[in-house]
Amino acid sequence: MTKIKTAIVGATGFTGSELARLIALHPSMDLVAITSESSAGEKFSSIHPQFFGLVDQILIRADEIEEKNIDLVFLAVPHGVSMHYIELWKNADFKIVDLSGDYRLNDPETYESWYGKKHSFTEAFDYAVYGLPEFFSKEISKARLVANPGCYPTSSILGVYPLIKENLVDANRIVIDSKSGATGAGIKAKSGTLYSQINENFNAYAIGNHRHTVEIEQILTGKTKSATKVQFTPHLLPVDRGILSTIYAQKTAEMELNTQRLHELYREVYADQPFIRIREEVPGIKEVRGTNFCDLYPTYDPRTNNIIVISTIDNLMKGAAGQAIHNANLMFGLKETAGLDLISLKP
Amino acid sequence: MTKIKTAIVGATGFTGSELARLIALHPSMDLVAITSESSAGEKFSSIHPQFFGLVDQILIRADEIEEKNIDLVFLAVPHGVSMHYIELWKNADFKIVDLSGDYRLNDPETYESWYGKKHSFTEAFDYAVYGLPEFFSKEISKARLVANPGCYPTSSILGVYPLIKENLVDANRIVIDSKSGATGAGIKAKSGTLYSQINENFNAYAIGNHRHTVEIEQILTGKTKSATKVQFTPHLLPVDRGILSTIYAQKTAEMELNTQRLHELYREVYADQPFIRIREEVPGIKEVRGTNFCDLYPTYDPRTNNIIVISTIDNLMKGAAGQAIHNANLMFGLKETAGLDLISLKP
Amino acid sequence: MTKIKTAIVGATGFTGSELARLIALHPSMDLVAITSESSAGEKFSSIHPQFFGLVDQILIRADEIEEKNIDLVFLAVPHGVSMHYIELWKNADFKIVDLSGDYRLNDPETYESWYGKKHSFTEAFDYAVYGLPEFFSKEISKARLVANPGCYPTSSILGVYPLIKENLVDANRIVIDSKSGATGAGIKAKSGTLYSQINENFNAYAIGNHRHTVEIEQILTGKTKSATKVQFTPHLLPVDRGILSTIYAQKTAEMELNTQRLHELYREVYADQPFIRIREEVPGIKEVRGTNFCDLYPTYDPRTNNIIVISTIDNLMKGAAGQAIHNANLMFGLKETAGLDLISLKP
Amino acid sequence: MTKIKTAIVGATGFTGSELARLIALHPSMDLVAITSESSAGEKFSSIHPQFFGLVDQILIRADEIEEKNIDLVFLAVPHGVSMHYIELWKNADFKIVDLSGDYRLNDPETYESWYGKKHSFTEAFDYAVYGLPEFFSKEISKARLVANPGCYPTSSILGVYPLIKENLVDANRIVIDSKSGATGAGIKAKSGTLYSQINENFNAYAIGNHRHTVEIEQILTGKTKSATKVQFTPHLLPVDRGILSTIYAQKTAEMELNTQRLHELYREVYADQPFIRIREEVPGIKEVRGTNFCDLYPTYDPRTNNIIVISTIDNLMKGAAGQAIHNANLMFGLKETAGLDLISLKP
Repeated sequence: MTKIKTAIVGATGFTGSELARLIALHPSMDLVAITSESSAGEKFSSIHPQFFGLVDQILIRADEIEEKNIDLVFLAVPHGVSMHYIELWKNADFKIVDLSGDYRLNDPETYESWYGKKHSFTEAFDYAVYGLPEFFSKEISKARLVANPGCYPTSSILGVYPLIKENLVDANRIVIDSKSGATGAGIKAKSGTLYSQINENFNAYAIGNHRHTVEIEQILTGKTKSATKVQFTPHLLPVDRGILSTIYAQKTAEMELNTQRLHELYREVYADQPFIRIREEVPGIKEVRGTNFCDLYPTYDPRTNNIIVISTIDNLMKGAAGQAIHNANLMFGLKETAGLDLISLKP
Repeated sequence: MTKIKTAIVGATGFTGSELARLIALHPSMDLVAITSESSAGEKFSSIHPQFFGLVDQILIRADEIEEKNIDLVFLAVPHGVSMHYIELWKNADFKIVDLSGDYRLNDPETYESWYGKKHSFTEAFDYAVYGLPEFFSKEISKARLVANPGCYPTSSILGVYPLIKENLVDANRIVIDSKSGATGAGIKAKSGTLYSQINENFNAYAIGNHRHTVEIEQILTGKTKSATKVQFTPHLLPVDRGILSTIYAQKTAEMELNTQRLHELYREVYADQPFIRIREEVPGIKEVRGTNFCDLYPTYDPRTNNIIVISTIDNLMKGAAGQAIHNANLMFGLKETAGLDLISLKP
Repeated sequence: MTKIKTAIVGATGFTGSELARLIALHPSMDLVAITSESSAGEKFSSIHPQFFGLVDQILIRADEIEEKNIDLVFLAVPHGVSMHYIELWKNADFKIVDLSGDYRLNDPETYESWYGKKHSFTEAFDYAVYGLPEFFSKEISKARLVANPGCYPTSSILGVYPLIKENLVDANRIVIDSKSGATGAGIKAKSGTLYSQINENFNAYAIGNHRHTVEIEQILTGKTKSATKVQFTPHLLPVDRGILSTIYAQKTAEMELNTQRLHELYREVYADQPFIRIREEVPGIKEVRGTNFCDLYPTYDPRTNNIIVISTIDNLMKGAAGQAIHNANLMFGLKETAGLDLISLKP
Repeated sequence: MTKIKTAIVGATGFTGSELARLIALHPSMDLVAITSESSAGEKFSSIHPQFFGLVDQILIRADEIEEKNIDLVFLAVPHGVSMHYIELWKNADFKIVDLSGDYRLNDPETYESWYGKKHSFTEAFDYAVYGLPEFFSKEISKARLVANPGCYPTSSILGVYPLIKENLVDANRIVIDSKSGATGAGIKAKSGTLYSQINENFNAYAIGNHRHTVEIEQILTGKTKSATKVQFTPHLLPVDRGILSTIYAQKTAEMELNTQRLHELYREVYADQPFIRIREEVPGIKEVRGTNFCDLYPTYDPRTNNIIVISTIDNLMKGAAGQAIHNANLMFGLKETAGLDLISLKP
């Protein structure tokens, strides 16, 4: 079988290197090109030395990929940059998975309000598909542009959704307390990502105004038709990878509830989803490290009438590169789990 | 001036060694005895080698301290053990600061229901004082038995209190999402405290049933006269020290609110408290490491009408040994900050 | 093609879980049985929860595997225990890879002197083969019992060997300063493996008397016919995985030398070895994490006339489970890299 | 008693903040000024938020300190910058402790050869004193310019010195394998000090050419009159603080030796030194964290005839700011341990 010819645009970040790892191990994909505007001409493995001897190809400029007969491009560049490539390649033959935030929201106005910048190529909102396979696999399989979800939204939406779908809770008052590993902050050297700033430390940030808030609300509202409002607070964990979201919702349904019933319900909702595990014990982030799993653990507290859901993912995998590969598998009619049948590297 | 003759009962844990550090540096305290039933006869510094050359005294058995003419005993033993010493020494001349949970709750019944064991010396509930100096400094100064607060409750109560005191929020629906460093789990070797179990990991535990829940509720209810109910979820951070609690409460007051007004209010409530800092920026746990500070940062989110408060402490200091010294200072009429004018070891 | 039916004896440790990960991903192996004397009857995934939904089989007792028509057994039990199974199964049909130290040394006398215990089944020394594929692939391919090398010796021997083979250095005065991640100390809870004991800490141990010293010396002496003596000092790193050995040897050869010439020489010596990478830059342990690579970086310092070699491996992979799979591939005529074409999980 | 009026020139780095911590706690020093060219006008505590409420003074420019009637300046700026201030203030009334490398070496020529830059103010070599109090306390007490030793040299020199002084070893073939915490690399954001680059990683760097090599050799040679040559290899540990040096030397003396005899000898050599602890057990870096101690542990291996010495310090304390305060205490006739009677923050 001919392999899918893929390119990664944006090689220097953590998402870029994680994509390279996954494509190199994928049975049906070839990594034909990796691009970097700042490092073109260098070896990929000189920037990410773990690939020494494995992925040594020379980085090219993004505008050189059109000569490469590519089938699929992964855009691993910052928001605000992706839109230019999507405009540049609006008539190109290849499909695109965009890992930035440029087309995740419903419309350019919301984007501009939460991202604080003008959107320069709004027409692609018409055909971009939000790449959460658990919700939109049909649309993804026909898409030519997929907007890969944010890491926090992936963890949050998958944890909250069954509660709203089943009308169990007040969708208007959901609290999501999320904690992410340091790779979520990107590879750029800045004082906040210095080793000694993160090590042995822990803090919240962007309280009440993180962009992922509106992504969570729009997707949940759109999918459930219940207006959803969330209080989302991200925190920075002293680990490389992993997101754990602790979700609090007040039960409003009259039905009797207990933790066991909640587990059954979550199992039903996600019955056919290969990357959702409803865990029997409280999960830790290390148990999904390096995998595309989202582990969920819902509980009901009769004392307070609250439902608490724990949701864990690897932010670079299910929160970025792994989900991008999952989307690509759907776009090209491959098995959903192709190249993603991985087991956590623990310890 | 004669120094206060102190003893630490229970030398092998983290709280015991932290007390030794603080007493050794305290201008008005002498460390006359350290006890350990399991290690009596050994040097304290052979168990905690950082004290080599500094605190080399030989560990004795607890029943030997009565000969030592002690003024003050710190009980650094597990709950269920403290009560036996308190019974044993009910007529002793010295005062006691108990760092266990044996006398923190209002009554033996609540203790037995949340701690799952019979209480064997209930009469001391009559004279034990809850050792949160910000609330009970008068009672503490006259007490002969102080129940030193739990680590999570210290962080939680101090963060929540101004909101209920000022009738700003629904006291019945408070969410406290707390994250603690690994020393909170104690020094005993067990599979859950293994390095490779905690490192690069993060998880919740005791969802809905942690003992500190009722301690938080009873103290807040008692102090504010508003029935308080909290959803408290502890998590385990891959750091040695520190607790960060993220507190969510729904604003019910009709008054206009914003973050600046909240800061002013917190500053007023804690105006005379030497160990409360109302921070201007979102605080991290490393900034209180090794100190007795509780750093607070309240915010108001007009979009959701929620108040979010960040509260950070060092669990071994303000959450245990530091607060115990603070209580001792009050009990002996010393300056509140004596021996506690420390600056965070950062990085 | 029929898959090789494998069993892991000893499921609870880190080596056991790493073997399970590798076998589950291996194209030509089936994991037919996992044993544990202490946890028989439980699910493997209840002990190692990262395997939830992936390897959920029930643990059996070791004596039950004979009914399973096994082709290959991995012994992932402590030294002193392996020998009993090897005696028990001396006439069994299956082959054995023993990951303990019981048959790594030349003879029972040396074993007893360095391991401090009597050897109870000495006859297997006659047919056990030391499982370092870079040296003994022919012998391994015919072996029915392979003694999988120690983690430190793997890193040390591969780093030193070219120097002695080429007669470049004084083989009698080699210094090996090794640093290992915490999984090297095993999964058993003890005070030394407590999170807060290892985190933010670093120390040497077993100075001058670690058992791996003699393993390094015997294998190097046997292979090169030059009597080799090493000063080996292990240290404990605050990371989960990885060994970095810094090797110092005094150049005695008269030939002109420089770092580039050394690199060429190492490349020649290891030309056909799929898991040895002679790195162009100083390597870090994270670049081999989760892989079976041994990365080497030799240098020559003309100022001191010393050769310094950096050697890095993942102690659970090339230092244990990965090398065991490599040996198994050789024993069953598979491609050397089968199931081991992995890329480092970095970050 | 009037306190010594001190200034810190260079506030933004780790050394600057550690000096501020120590001076704020010092019984005989006042922190009159802190300077920063890049952040003048900001609060010190806005750069190092752990000082919030404790050291909130406004940063000034270095050229403003002359108006402040200063007694003592700590230069906490990079090498190459210090020399300009020392020239500028060559006739000033205050004394100077320079924490950079500008005056640690014997002469400008060696400086230029190892630091790769021209020295612009060479005359101060004539009166600069190397600030290792264990060797040069008399000279330091009379000095007006002290060159505070490098972190690696402090750890290395103190560990090696007794061996050469007593003619036990071949001074010409000493191996020093050093491992340092990440604060040694400074506070400047660069890709190598990124959290995810250091966390779970470990590597050597500057093999054979680190500047501290010559500092170690010159000081040991000068003090012992035996030409000393060392093979020094630094490594980067995933911890904030701490240096552990493992020192290897070949015994050449004819005298009988064992580990106990070595310990006695070290105790004699350092009998009057308040910050040297000859430890009875192998030390870890966490046991000196936050203190000015250098913990030493020498051993003799009769099998190889090597002496191995473990030497640990906190690189920001005994390796920088703590030693600077020690030097200042000597320069002003204070008790050596003034402000430095600290106990390790462990855990």
